[in-house]
Amino acid sequence: MKRTVTRLSDGRELIYFDRRDDVSREALDTRVLPAPPAPAELRHDPVLDEWVAIAAHRQQRTFLPSTEDCPLCPSAPGRAGEIPAADYEVAVFENRFPSFRDPGRCEVVCFSSDHDESFASLPAAQVQTVIEAWADRTAELSALPGTEQVFCFENRGEEIGVTLHHPHGQIYAFPYLPPRTVQLLGSARRYRGDLFADVLARERAERIRVVAANELWTAFVPAAARWPFEVHLYPHRRVADIPALSQAEREAFATLYQDVLRRFDRLFGIPMPYISAWHQAPVHVDRDLAYLHLQLFSSRRAADRLKYLAGSESAMGAFINDVRPEEAARLLRET
Amino acid sequence: MKRTVTRLSDGRELIYFDRRDDVSREALDTRVLPAPPAPAELRHDPVLDEWVAIAAHRQQRTFLPSTEDCPLCPSAPGRAGEIPAADYEVAVFENRFPSFRDPGRCEVVCFSSDHDESFASLPAAQVQTVIEAWADRTAELSALPGTEQVFCFENRGEEIGVTLHHPHGQIYAFPYLPPRTVQLLGSARRYRGDLFADVLARERAERIRVVAANELWTAFVPAAARWPFEVHLYPHRRVADIPALSQAEREAFATLYQDVLRRFDRLFGIPMPYISAWHQAPVHVDRDLAYLHLQLFSSRRAADRLKYLAGSESAMGAFINDVRPEEAARLLRET
Repeated sequence: MKRTVTRLSDGRELIYFDRRDDVSREALDTRVLPAPPAPAELRHDPVLDEWVAIAAHRQQRTFLPSTEDCPLCPSAPGRAGEIPAADYEVAVFENRFPSFRDPGRCEVVCFSSDHDESFASLPAAQVQTVIEAWADRTAELSALPGTEQVFCFENRGEEIGVTLHHPHGQIYAFPYLPPRTVQLLGSARRYRGDLFADVLARERAERIRVVAANELWTAFVPAAARWPFEVHLYPHRRVADIPALSQAEREAFATLYQDVLRRFDRLFGIPMPYISAWHQAPVHVDRDLAYLHLQLFSSRRAADRLKYLAGSESAMGAFINDVRPEEAARLLRET
Repeated sequence: MKRTVTRLSDGRELIYFDRRDDVSREALDTRVLPAPPAPAELRHDPVLDEWVAIAAHRQQRTFLPSTEDCPLCPSAPGRAGEIPAADYEVAVFENRFPSFRDPGRCEVVCFSSDHDESFASLPAAQVQTVIEAWADRTAELSALPGTEQVFCFENRGEEIGVTLHHPHGQIYAFPYLPPRTVQLLGSARRYRGDLFADVLARERAERIRVVAANELWTAFVPAAARWPFEVHLYPHRRVADIPALSQAEREAFATLYQDVLRRFDRLFGIPMPYISAWHQAPVHVDRDLAYLHLQLFSSRRAADRLKYLAGSESAMGAFINDVRPEEAARLLRET
């Protein structure tokens, strides 16, 4: 794997990941760009004892550009995007409209140079390059001063607010422990036993909510799923984060994950909007409590209906799920 | 205030609240309705140590009916809705598609018989009747076995998933402490001092985030607001819940709240989608820690843009706010 680090014209880092060792990554960003926005403003909410990021400059971020103006496509004469190369395999760069920065860092991961690809249909080798990029970024961002947790995720679909269609994910190096992680660690600490191992063992024993599995990973709908279609992927071996996955585990993950993503898309016969979120161990605390897993969920509850987070969820954190988890698992198994 | 309790044809309760004492509420529900759905299925999520309600029957709930078929409008010959009367002031009934039931209870509050009203434009006397209904329901539902917290709220706008346009709110008698309440109580318990009184005192002293105020209430954008437009209304006197508000406090609240709602609608010149949520003291625990307040927020971040909860918020609970709270307050003050 070849890894090439360059800089965009406003100083942001761009990193190419290439399977071939002989590619040249010398294309220069010739754009005249404004200086990056001011550092993050992080505010503490005393009522919930949580951090909130204020990022007013994001109001100006690129919003559903036409395909010809896609900033994630390779550049061509007369068309300069975020990636100056005429083609690429996987590219990662610092987000031009970050949610936070110094402390913290937000990156964009381009899964493919093909604007019309989706993660579900990437060639197997390409998925491995993406995993390599996630592992690389997790290790490097974890080493930055102030990083508390590295969060690799993908938002897919206009229905959930995606502003760029090109297949891409994001990586947040949170400068604080995100609220859900704080809660999950508290829960694991209070639990008598091995929380995540027990959850996985129960699902593998009961089988009724398992969507698909292989020797190294299991994909299941959690018994108390919050979303109409929600699937968690656990490795059978406890590891803290993506860099700790073996090559065999990376390959087994890719197979299972793409299988589940394709089931999502087949379910209603239309591309499923989804959020896919890696829960990795925090960098500095409680690494022994964590258990790497991926949370995949969609707000689509029927072919023509979305689930909205209204008063109960948004103001009280109390989720109401309109689809029984066992039924969701059955539908995903049978599709 | 006259309060009349009746039953719908499937056994659900319907309660009329009338300012006039001489109205007759004897109209009968002549519809043939299926039996109410099965009791709630509450599941505990061990990973986050939270309760989730599974309510599969809600997939069949009424979805954006035409105005002629509005189930919340008064009934007329040939058109039977949820309220059999030919007119009403404020009516409350058990939700036909509840998120949970036995334990717990979900009610619908019709703010007006006029399909095209909105809370912002209700006559002052009508708002007092709604507050009376909230107080009555809070007291009565708090006395039901198993109720842990009574939550009065309104979802307004198709943009946030509202399925009925008729002006109405909802009341949930939660059979468990909702996650946000658990968190808020933990935070208040850990805080050195009087958390809510300190928050209010700071906002009243700094003034920069105050949207509007009167002698008994202050409306401000929280310093660490999560939503582009979020306003909290605190009474100056600490009370646990709506029933504990004095008549003067109810009237002062109504004036201030309608003022803020009208500012919301003026902001972009179009009806603002919003969630309005009363945070009352829990029924059985920590009543001394709580401080009644109303949380009002909108996901609209610009005239043509909504904020979506994507990976950071939905999977990590980490909010990114694109509008500085001081700027949101200024825009709301000046509109």
